[in-house]
Amino acid sequence: MTKAQIVGWGHTAFGKSEHPDTEALMAEAVAAALDHAGITPEDVDGLFVGVFNNGFSKQDFQGALVAMGDARFAHVPATRYENACATGSAALHGALDFIDAGRGRIALVVGAEKMTATPNPEVGDILLGASYRKEEADAEGGFAGLFGRIADSYFQRYGDRSEELAMIAAKNHANGMGNPYAHLRKDFGVEFCNTVSEKNPRVAGPLRRTDCSLVSDGAAVLVLADAETAAGMARGIGFRARAQANDIMAMSRRDVLEFRGARMAWDKALAEGGVAIDDLSLVETHDCFTIAEMLEYEAMGLAAPGQGHRVIREGITRKDGRLPVNPSGGLKSKGHPIGATGVSMHVMAAMQLMGEAGDMQIPGARLAGVFNMGGAAVANYVSILERVK
Amino acid sequence: MTKAQIVGWGHTAFGKSEHPDTEALMAEAVAAALDHAGITPEDVDGLFVGVFNNGFSKQDFQGALVAMGDARFAHVPATRYENACATGSAALHGALDFIDAGRGRIALVVGAEKMTATPNPEVGDILLGASYRKEEADAEGGFAGLFGRIADSYFQRYGDRSEELAMIAAKNHANGMGNPYAHLRKDFGVEFCNTVSEKNPRVAGPLRRTDCSLVSDGAAVLVLADAETAAGMARGIGFRARAQANDIMAMSRRDVLEFRGARMAWDKALAEGGVAIDDLSLVETHDCFTIAEMLEYEAMGLAAPGQGHRVIREGITRKDGRLPVNPSGGLKSKGHPIGATGVSMHVMAAMQLMGEAGDMQIPGARLAGVFNMGGAAVANYVSILERVK
Repeated sequence: MTKAQIVGWGHTAFGKSEHPDTEALMAEAVAAALDHAGITPEDVDGLFVGVFNNGFSKQDFQGALVAMGDARFAHVPATRYENACATGSAALHGALDFIDAGRGRIALVVGAEKMTATPNPEVGDILLGASYRKEEADAEGGFAGLFGRIADSYFQRYGDRSEELAMIAAKNHANGMGNPYAHLRKDFGVEFCNTVSEKNPRVAGPLRRTDCSLVSDGAAVLVLADAETAAGMARGIGFRARAQANDIMAMSRRDVLEFRGARMAWDKALAEGGVAIDDLSLVETHDCFTIAEMLEYEAMGLAAPGQGHRVIREGITRKDGRLPVNPSGGLKSKGHPIGATGVSMHVMAAMQLMGEAGDMQIPGARLAGVFNMGGAAVANYVSILERVK
Repeated sequence: MTKAQIVGWGHTAFGKSEHPDTEALMAEAVAAALDHAGITPEDVDGLFVGVFNNGFSKQDFQGALVAMGDARFAHVPATRYENACATGSAALHGALDFIDAGRGRIALVVGAEKMTATPNPEVGDILLGASYRKEEADAEGGFAGLFGRIADSYFQRYGDRSEELAMIAAKNHANGMGNPYAHLRKDFGVEFCNTVSEKNPRVAGPLRRTDCSLVSDGAAVLVLADAETAAGMARGIGFRARAQANDIMAMSRRDVLEFRGARMAWDKALAEGGVAIDDLSLVETHDCFTIAEMLEYEAMGLAAPGQGHRVIREGITRKDGRLPVNPSGGLKSKGHPIGATGVSMHVMAAMQLMGEAGDMQIPGARLAGVFNMGGAAVANYVSILERVK
């Protein structure tokens, strides 16, 4: 187990925010996190900031923005990370390395994105910056187009799984009803999600609106401390394991349906943690699109390739199932403010382990898995979290 | 001393490159670095990629581009860092933390930028993404405008130092004559640099063209290994110390002439390394503008505030002086491909310590300082390097 622990967190509501920019979003989440962990900025040795940006704002150098929201951070070393939709996990890994290397005792991981101020067609183009543009930038509707192609290929190879995708959407929306931070708290039900309608049109390939996560604003913060410092604090959640595995960016150069990088990250993390997937109490996984969650069932070993549909059919990943997946509602219900997402997933898992998840709570949660990815399974991160105090 | 060492490097020519993008630039520098260190991609545990981007290319997620240039990196964890003009040092610190935390044995730090494909006015606006845009985006001519204001303030407080700025420019251009990677290898001399002319017009405030670094393409790579692995390799350069210190981003909220963050980073690094500035054999410092190098003389303790001009007048920082500063020619002569710069500075210092600096060589170089900054002394990094084998 690595040395750093999660000792607190902060989380803004996700959705269309009154905050005009990431600076304001981060300030709200940072203040909440300081309060939650019972620390002050003077205690903080490093700021690890995850923002995708890439055109959402002309303001770059966003590592320096945390101190603009609270000048007590003025001299704290700050660094920005970006790894597409896994930007938050990239910042987290940087902070963990910083503490595990003995460079500091307390670090903040700050993930944020302001997306709703940008017109929709531009949002799509900005997000395609996370695809291999030379070959993939022509996708209709941005990343939805890429995952639409993935869903198409999957259906061609393994059969039409539209209904199971709708079941995943419905599960996550039902779960999101219990999440006070979620963008879209509405229990749509399987039938609505499985029916193409004016309110639920096709977006790309077989994907309907309910198969896609939302464009949202939001920020999330994790407070990390080394084990010794954490021992004197109210909360302590350790990393039983953490792993990153990449895959080649261009989809033309791999069988994307393998989600090989995701599989490798899970294999590494489970081996490092000495646990099996069934030992986990819950998983927060990267459901940017419902087809992604289905492929991730296969990558995490819940089903053989092409059999992911069985996992949702059998109710395994429902909140009352053997392995609840996305009890928070996932990206589907929470929304997907790119830089915040990976941090938010860890916050949701940490809440579960501390028994602070309110209406989302999985009783007796002991070990939690988190899977966050950038691109279509290009940069893949898995954490296995466990409560240590 | 931290555990990781520099065991090899690669460096493209800086300037207007035939390479169309960062993907190609990185591929060239990475191949050179593998060769230089005598390793293969299979040996590499992590890729730490520094690219500023912010609009130079619509392709973001550039951590994933290294593997597009050499598919043997396909599954190696890769992360992108951005910290304005200190982006390269941010990636370096990430890689050092990774190795020092025991997460891997060999890491590549890859810094790159493709700037010359972007029209000049756009370049200025893109670079202002590293200023606090809410207050500073109106600067004429981009960052030159900001440093023009800084030079103006400095002259008002301490007297006109135009001639000494020209002496700094002339020194760095003379040094750059020996640097095969430099963008501009031309020995302009003090008189040319100190005379406003058609070929050397005013750019912003008192700054002339020769007071400004160049818009360039380029990539640089450092190979890092843990001490044990490094012991079996041809080269080994350790980090006697490394430090990062930030300052508040908005210039309205500090006395920018203090360069306080730069001073703090130097103080921390010298204390950690147990050395005085005069113990160093050379310094590579961030001369994005000549006024920056003068302020950095003061920040590194070579002169009291307002007395930086004496340092160049007395010849202290000339190649044959007591403490040669920018024997590589600095950003002035090399050019300033943003993401590559911090990495390049470390490559230049490492070459000196290994006695591989060719015409740039400072005889008997034993300890080298590197100062790289993002924004106007906002994110400040100092390394003290020493040869360990």
